[in-house]
Amino acid sequence: MSGTHSRSTVHDFFGLGEEQNHRSEFHFDGDHPELFSSADNGPTPVEVVLVGLASCLTAGVAAVAQNREIQLRSVTATLRGDMDLRGILGIDPDVRNGFSGITVTYTIDADATADEIKALVAQAQKRSAVYDIVTNPTNVTVEVD
Amino acid sequence: MSGTHSRSTVHDFFGLGEEQNHRSEFHFDGDHPELFSSADNGPTPVEVVLVGLASCLTAGVAAVAQNREIQLRSVTATLRGDMDLRGILGIDPDVRNGFSGITVTYTIDADATADEIKALVAQAQKRSAVYDIVTNPTNVTVEVD
Repeated sequence: MSGTHSRSTVHDFFGLGEEQNHRSEFHFDGDHPELFSSADNGPTPVEVVLVGLASCLTAGVAAVAQNREIQLRSVTATLRGDMDLRGILGIDPDVRNGFSGITVTYTIDADATADEIKALVAQAQKRSAVYDIVTNPTNVTVEVD
Repeated sequence: MSGTHSRSTVHDFFGLGEEQNHRSEFHFDGDHPELFSSADNGPTPVEVVLVGLASCLTAGVAAVAQNREIQLRSVTATLRGDMDLRGILGIDPDVRNGFSGITVTYTIDADATADEIKALVAQAQKRSAVYDIVTNPTNVTVEVD
């Protein structure tokens, strides 16, 4: 591990009143691209957030479709996060560090009308944890041990 | 791919006025745990967001330490996201879908005083794109093609 390269491990979580474990540990590498003088050993952290958003909304589409007995043949989400790098580079204090906005575009092939598909996506959006975390303020406390 | 299991691919991005590519494509699997009647083929989407936050803040710690000529020996971030599942399960409309709060705890071994290490982490937090995305509202538009 060197430079901005980091490795993350996801293992246990707490649910239904007790500690739960995933079947196996999941590992992620994160890094910054060569453009930022880094080694590009993994996606950037902001891309990881887009991955979380995509998998949350898409799992929602699958769950809602099952509830509504809609047969999905394929679901593809394309995500675009817009960012003005003057923020993160500290060049302009009026520009935020994060995305100015995110666009998610779904292409869905299913046994359903266009309106049913739109309603499916709208319901997934309404129930999504990551959509909530990204669109609304979430308190983060950072401590040093 | 079945149930809530999804696979995400991260490939190109736009920067410095032109399309840029990562050295290689990155792939992620996302899923929900067995507790939620899913196959647990990957971390949950909200855990993926915590991974993004951890790798963003930690890359910042590394970058700021280099700027300040502080030699880091080891940096470990432990993240905890609190979530009341009554939100995401739709049991209580007054409970949000996402995390009620996130705590990041750093353990850092470095050639620096405790105050210098705290200042390092504070600066990383101030410059972090993902910290900004999570703590402040970010607009997300969801479209169906």
